[in-house]
Amino acid sequence: MADKKLIGVDLGGTTAKFAILTLDGDIQQRWSIDTNILDEGSHIVPDIIDSINEHLDLYNMQAADFVGIGMGSPGSVDIEAGTVTGAFNLNWKTKQNVKKDIEKGTGIPFSIDNDANVAALGERWKGAGDNNPDVTFVTLGTGVGGGVVADGNLLHGIAGSAGELGHVTVDPNGYLCTCGKHGCLETVASATGVVRVARDMAEEFAGNSKLKEILDDGDEISSKIVFDCAKEGDKLALMVVDKVSYYLGLAMGNVGNMLNPKYIVIGGGVSAAGDFLLTRVDAYFKQFTFPNVRETTKLRLATLGNTAGVIGAASLALK
Amino acid sequence: MADKKLIGVDLGGTTAKFAILTLDGDIQQRWSIDTNILDEGSHIVPDIIDSINEHLDLYNMQAADFVGIGMGSPGSVDIEAGTVTGAFNLNWKTKQNVKKDIEKGTGIPFSIDNDANVAALGERWKGAGDNNPDVTFVTLGTGVGGGVVADGNLLHGIAGSAGELGHVTVDPNGYLCTCGKHGCLETVASATGVVRVARDMAEEFAGNSKLKEILDDGDEISSKIVFDCAKEGDKLALMVVDKVSYYLGLAMGNVGNMLNPKYIVIGGGVSAAGDFLLTRVDAYFKQFTFPNVRETTKLRLATLGNTAGVIGAASLALK
Repeated sequence: MADKKLIGVDLGGTTAKFAILTLDGDIQQRWSIDTNILDEGSHIVPDIIDSINEHLDLYNMQAADFVGIGMGSPGSVDIEAGTVTGAFNLNWKTKQNVKKDIEKGTGIPFSIDNDANVAALGERWKGAGDNNPDVTFVTLGTGVGGGVVADGNLLHGIAGSAGELGHVTVDPNGYLCTCGKHGCLETVASATGVVRVARDMAEEFAGNSKLKEILDDGDEISSKIVFDCAKEGDKLALMVVDKVSYYLGLAMGNVGNMLNPKYIVIGGGVSAAGDFLLTRVDAYFKQFTFPNVRETTKLRLATLGNTAGVIGAASLALK
Repeated sequence: MADKKLIGVDLGGTTAKFAILTLDGDIQQRWSIDTNILDEGSHIVPDIIDSINEHLDLYNMQAADFVGIGMGSPGSVDIEAGTVTGAFNLNWKTKQNVKKDIEKGTGIPFSIDNDANVAALGERWKGAGDNNPDVTFVTLGTGVGGGVVADGNLLHGIAGSAGELGHVTVDPNGYLCTCGKHGCLETVASATGVVRVARDMAEEFAGNSKLKEILDDGDEISSKIVFDCAKEGDKLALMVVDKVSYYLGLAMGNVGNMLNPKYIVIGGGVSAAGDFLLTRVDAYFKQFTFPNVRETTKLRLATLGNTAGVIGAASLALK
């Protein structure tokens, strides 16, 4: 057992990332393949099986060398059955028996969970979470997702929605979210949310602002442009960052008040803004937490980047 | 083992409640004693030991007949060490070695947790939680407390503050809380919070209202009077209940969005308003939850009343 290895798979709509890891979570090999979503995504699982088997041949390894394969997937995952439904960015229109197919195709035990949850497991195990039993992870990307590890367990809730931090209500009268309700964190703190806040605040902003000029010119903007302008002292951009930080501090503050984790780890593309974002969120976090949480729960930036998924996925095989 | 029993103790500032229960959580005997907080609370633990030993004699039972004693306590509980600090309503000014003293005095293994957590365990095990592994409990009393059972584990967080639902921020610009921050759920949904909301709304209310008359006369009011007036159709009282329900629905909605429990159980004195309160909170809960949570997480009224504490406390002995 001591020399056995893990395989982690991070399945996304563009690529599937793979890694072979030690039982301590150290990556030994990494590769990736394009995700072929043609023909209702029917090539995806066979491609994953072929790629694993090819790389095992390449590295002169056998199925028996592995404790298991763990995978993170978009969509709604039934972790017991090992099935996925509703993964629209994979073009999967029906329930996929991922576990059954991959175990048959590789001869290796297989476990699966959703992509935000495995990223949370990865950051908790080998990233900013320092392998603490109480870590909450929030990812600020195209959308906002998350995962909660509490008392050492990844929480799923009764229907798999535990850790859906993107849909925490931060403004009851706020923007309409794709989920149908108003004022979700995702509407203001995702990459598109930051841009939405910038566009709205620009309309009422009267002073000098490079960000406003870019917007008035009709140029495409990104959350990165907003943060870059703010770092240069742009007044409008600073107001936008302050508003986004306020909502993140409120939501993360309530995560702290409810769960009192050791760390709340912030990852995803928007978090590339780094300490510039973190210090602003932290100021509001402290405003919105009561003393014992304020003193014991810390905000941190994610450290693993896009390897969090394969590392966390691999850890599923250890259960 | 099968015939062995549990002892549950629910220690409060006024009384200590005791029960002897089967391993299935059925109460066989109950009694209580006054809590003597004189002399810095130094009589409390000896009184508990004496009361247990006396009742064991009375029922012709020995220490060996019990799996253990579990206790819920006010203050800050170190569950590993079995100690309590900062229980001001018990007049305890220093750290109390409760576990060591009670094990020595009774010869029975002893476990302890805080009072809101053991009430959560009780409602989850034998009350409205139907022994489901994912149940959140909120108690609306003099203050607002709570406990979270997730994946079958009672959550504590890194410093014992998990489940502190009373300090979830529901209104960033709201009332100052005793904890030092603004807009905590406790400031509007505890018994005193409901009265505070009523007093404030009465000042701006112009129509006919029995509740306003009572307030204008300078009479003492309680949350029960507010709910009783609302049930009789009093316009001001209905507005107060609506506002309290809005904040409870927002906070419980975010509990749902983060944890997706099977049940969120509402207990404590304010919940005596029953379905009249629950249906109003539920309408806002549905507004503030995204679809998968809205469809799978249910609000329920607590069913055990003041026996939740001894039952949940006893369950600590089963760990």
